[in-house]
Amino acid sequence: MSTKVSKIAVMTSGGDAPGMNAAVRAVVRACVFNNIECMGVLRGYQGLIDNELIPLDSRSVRNTISRGGTFLQTARSEAFRTPEGRKKAYENFKANGLDALIVIGGDGSFTGGMIFNKEFKVPVIGIPGTIDNDIYGTQFTLGYDTALNTVVEAIDKIRDTASSHNRLFFVEVMGRDAGFIALNAGIGAGAEEILIPEENLGIERLVESLENSKKSGKTSSIVVVAEGDKTGKGVFELKDFVEKNMPEYDVRVSVLGHMQRGGSPSCFDRVLAGRLGVKAVDLLLGGQSNLMVGINNNEITAINLEKAVKLHHDINMDLLRVADILSI
Amino acid sequence: MSTKVSKIAVMTSGGDAPGMNAAVRAVVRACVFNNIECMGVLRGYQGLIDNELIPLDSRSVRNTISRGGTFLQTARSEAFRTPEGRKKAYENFKANGLDALIVIGGDGSFTGGMIFNKEFKVPVIGIPGTIDNDIYGTQFTLGYDTALNTVVEAIDKIRDTASSHNRLFFVEVMGRDAGFIALNAGIGAGAEEILIPEENLGIERLVESLENSKKSGKTSSIVVVAEGDKTGKGVFELKDFVEKNMPEYDVRVSVLGHMQRGGSPSCFDRVLAGRLGVKAVDLLLGGQSNLMVGINNNEITAINLEKAVKLHHDINMDLLRVADILSI
Amino acid sequence: MSTKVSKIAVMTSGGDAPGMNAAVRAVVRACVFNNIECMGVLRGYQGLIDNELIPLDSRSVRNTISRGGTFLQTARSEAFRTPEGRKKAYENFKANGLDALIVIGGDGSFTGGMIFNKEFKVPVIGIPGTIDNDIYGTQFTLGYDTALNTVVEAIDKIRDTASSHNRLFFVEVMGRDAGFIALNAGIGAGAEEILIPEENLGIERLVESLENSKKSGKTSSIVVVAEGDKTGKGVFELKDFVEKNMPEYDVRVSVLGHMQRGGSPSCFDRVLAGRLGVKAVDLLLGGQSNLMVGINNNEITAINLEKAVKLHHDINMDLLRVADILSI
Amino acid sequence: MSTKVSKIAVMTSGGDAPGMNAAVRAVVRACVFNNIECMGVLRGYQGLIDNELIPLDSRSVRNTISRGGTFLQTARSEAFRTPEGRKKAYENFKANGLDALIVIGGDGSFTGGMIFNKEFKVPVIGIPGTIDNDIYGTQFTLGYDTALNTVVEAIDKIRDTASSHNRLFFVEVMGRDAGFIALNAGIGAGAEEILIPEENLGIERLVESLENSKKSGKTSSIVVVAEGDKTGKGVFELKDFVEKNMPEYDVRVSVLGHMQRGGSPSCFDRVLAGRLGVKAVDLLLGGQSNLMVGINNNEITAINLEKAVKLHHDINMDLLRVADILSI
Repeated sequence: MSTKVSKIAVMTSGGDAPGMNAAVRAVVRACVFNNIECMGVLRGYQGLIDNELIPLDSRSVRNTISRGGTFLQTARSEAFRTPEGRKKAYENFKANGLDALIVIGGDGSFTGGMIFNKEFKVPVIGIPGTIDNDIYGTQFTLGYDTALNTVVEAIDKIRDTASSHNRLFFVEVMGRDAGFIALNAGIGAGAEEILIPEENLGIERLVESLENSKKSGKTSSIVVVAEGDKTGKGVFELKDFVEKNMPEYDVRVSVLGHMQRGGSPSCFDRVLAGRLGVKAVDLLLGGQSNLMVGINNNEITAINLEKAVKLHHDINMDLLRVADILSI
Repeated sequence: MSTKVSKIAVMTSGGDAPGMNAAVRAVVRACVFNNIECMGVLRGYQGLIDNELIPLDSRSVRNTISRGGTFLQTARSEAFRTPEGRKKAYENFKANGLDALIVIGGDGSFTGGMIFNKEFKVPVIGIPGTIDNDIYGTQFTLGYDTALNTVVEAIDKIRDTASSHNRLFFVEVMGRDAGFIALNAGIGAGAEEILIPEENLGIERLVESLENSKKSGKTSSIVVVAEGDKTGKGVFELKDFVEKNMPEYDVRVSVLGHMQRGGSPSCFDRVLAGRLGVKAVDLLLGGQSNLMVGINNNEITAINLEKAVKLHHDINMDLLRVADILSI
Repeated sequence: MSTKVSKIAVMTSGGDAPGMNAAVRAVVRACVFNNIECMGVLRGYQGLIDNELIPLDSRSVRNTISRGGTFLQTARSEAFRTPEGRKKAYENFKANGLDALIVIGGDGSFTGGMIFNKEFKVPVIGIPGTIDNDIYGTQFTLGYDTALNTVVEAIDKIRDTASSHNRLFFVEVMGRDAGFIALNAGIGAGAEEILIPEENLGIERLVESLENSKKSGKTSSIVVVAEGDKTGKGVFELKDFVEKNMPEYDVRVSVLGHMQRGGSPSCFDRVLAGRLGVKAVDLLLGGQSNLMVGINNNEITAINLEKAVKLHHDINMDLLRVADILSI
Repeated sequence: MSTKVSKIAVMTSGGDAPGMNAAVRAVVRACVFNNIECMGVLRGYQGLIDNELIPLDSRSVRNTISRGGTFLQTARSEAFRTPEGRKKAYENFKANGLDALIVIGGDGSFTGGMIFNKEFKVPVIGIPGTIDNDIYGTQFTLGYDTALNTVVEAIDKIRDTASSHNRLFFVEVMGRDAGFIALNAGIGAGAEEILIPEENLGIERLVESLENSKKSGKTSSIVVVAEGDKTGKGVFELKDFVEKNMPEYDVRVSVLGHMQRGGSPSCFDRVLAGRLGVKAVDLLLGGQSNLMVGINNNEITAINLEKAVKLHHDINMDLLRVADILSI
């Protein structure tokens, strides 16, 4: 493990998230600071297979900190799931004189990195980048804070029109497996009810809650629904259900969709990106590998990549009580 | 018609739009400035029937200029379509000592105002408030400029993720009968293609355009689609069509929905609201009625309400050529 | 200490911060949830002396979560520093049937609360609300995250014009005693240098840093300066110094000023406000007093008010190294 | 004049403004559309003298529409004021095979273009780009609408803190020679008073207005001041004056500064940029020269450059009455 690292590859992989550019910038500048070289891999693992790499220096990442998306682009690679694909990737990796890899992405991207490390002894560090915040080993993933603000700003706008018309809105937000966005943005947007994958309250509870809202004098309501909620109904079915059972409600649906993935990163995400990127390079230069960097208790930490992939980042169930109280 | 106006009612009616609060504020303050009284009618014509009115003075509208939606609320009223309903409305109108009405809304709201005027000789002035910009007699309606910015900001975010993944997005924006939002926000967002109700290019043109985009080196594309576009296909069908016929594209759909109606008004809409509101009161005090105020050539003008309702505000077809050139 | 709490007063005091309204809303709704009463004190301690209080229920705080500033207003009270003033305040407190006080503010406000508690045995809980983040016992104060985003968005705009003209900007941000905003927003905005009260690098270091920036190919630069920085020079003197000693630079100054205190709170601040407000009421109902609630390691905690006031919240000096690396 | 145009140079000159990138993009794509070549001149006229030009094609301007500033950069050129400088510029111009020039900027930039045309018969078209809106021949200049929104958003934030503390703020905005920004953003932000270069009301009027504000129950006030206002006092002197003469006011000053020049352009500015850029190329291809394109009555028009430079764009004084009424 103690081969000296002198040229690092960095890639973004899986779903894009705000702050990925800022993290690439941090990796690049930490390399320059430490007098080592850095290359960017385009389109994730597929770019390694296709030998699409670009040299990166301080100036290449100028003015990227404020940009959403990832200028290295990202993709899912079927080829990298095959031994042949990975062999090709490794050959390009060596041909470019690289000796370590930093992967910015989520679970799937880290799994790819672990296999690459196992098969070819390439030092790998993961940086958690996903708006879903569902990665074990870090309290916050890159892009999550930005997505929360995007969702809250959108629902603030929807609230304007809901209040003007005394309407009930079902607002679907991202989160197929985890309710972080729905729960926190729901509280932030003052939602009357929040439906998340982690809790199956049943449709009856929703009806009851809406009836209580109405009794307490609320004339409009916002229900935030995570993609993966457990009522067994999508937002459009929820609309139909409420319209049938509570005909006094004028119901609308809004699916926020992919705009949640974009936008200029928040200050929190930019600073986090900087700290994680610098730490990732520090770890490689210290001879370490197979770690995911993260933020915990406001400090940058590192855990085993395997642990990050296997374990589950649970939402804070106390927030459900807070949400209930605040929607009274 | 020369009865002196000394107490004016103001209401918002139909769909809400950013800037309605600013317009109500302007009406109220213009009344105070002219030493006359003002009352706000809640929930449009229905509030007149239900006698839900509130007195408004300068301080009642404090800090409303920056707020989306309408604090007077709005609704569609079935009862006002009946002679009995309108009679009830007029009785309340007189009982409150009112002698003129300012209606902020769209075509339907103005039609209501015209009938009210015809039946009861109540002086009525209309202020065009709708994000759709589809009202004859004004180059810009209240809320339109704000909605354009909302749409462009949302598509900028979608562009981040589209570019990161080389994806094609169909983005549906409001505009059932008119393509103002789609065409202008499409140009503003740098869309590769724009589908509007005023032009039926056919699905073949879209395919051709996408193929040209690809040839010219574009790796991601945004197609902006007005709700009422004339391909005969909704955005989800368009997605299916392209996926089937151009399988090289990774296609996504985003329906922007009701967030387009909300949000803090832009400076343009706030100033417009101020000018229109002041003019509406000026006209009533000058003994005029049955007019809609509007902005043309940067001046505040007025046309007959009947004309405003009957005629059609056409989009500037020159913009289609501009859109074509800019998406090259 | 075990008198039952059945009517709570809440006030905002000292400098205003985004999220204060959201915290008041949370206190009010937590009271309603627990079937107790709540009153809002206007203008901080002065309002208690002047007996300016308003009853608050769930509907009174409707739509306040998204608003900057504090609808209860805030003020500094000279009278409350006198025994007579506090006696008057206590008499009003009792006359209103109140039995506990929640103060949202900073150090000075908490000191007031501690004295009030000591003299009259009134249970008091503090909620840390200030954009400066300089309060011991909480990793984040209410309003800090929002202020960071406001500063970063402003500097992003300044960067646009700096880059267009190859200019050097000194941007002054708030922070008379602490560099939290300057350091974090400086990193977030990609500043080339950051000057904070906690570190006195001397003016030579700044010149050296600017010379390095230029050598590395940077053509424009942003230097973020906290109000209380230790160069002994204000931003305008810094400008003069650089213009004299590095005449090749075209230097400009921007003082961001009070806009940093306003704006709709970020999602982070809204959720934090909700959690802190609920916890404050929980503590009072559990018979506790003289505590400040805070957030540490993503959990809501409480420490002695005295400790919060006496001890110092230090910035994370590791961030200085991160800032240096990222500005390379 | 009928030499065929086959290669156009485009530059940004003078102060930068949001929308300049969008205009460059429009020029470039209109060239591509018309099968002619386009080159970008860096740093305005100075770049022509220094022979700093870059070829631009459709892909070079990818993703520039949403960016503030100007990627071509801008500068003021002393050398271009000399015959030798202009001769050098023209030699480079010919050496690059260019046969027409599009200048995006203000009065000074157009004057430069006129001289260049006069001396070397180079066809020149001007596009008005400045946030100040003070150019004759167009109702709106590029960047003006964006600057208005930036100012209004900043003052909305200042209003939050002003209202929380019952304070009076003097807010200085750009506009050394013209009050467009101050007057329109002042109305948009709901300012209590607006001081502009076009009107010298005297300091007494301000005091009177503040006293009326107070009588009408206003507890906080915003006074928007254009840089070039005619009270003969700067914002800091105004503060001192009011503090001395109206000691009941707690006064603060905010100088918005250069952030007004930056930021992602509004939809209005992006569409305007597109239309102006396309028209500029159309005119050159039609054999025209020495014109400035502009927008009037929502149509793209052109006037003689000389007229644009010599005549004065006056503010709409009717707006002063609207401002007075709205601040009641």
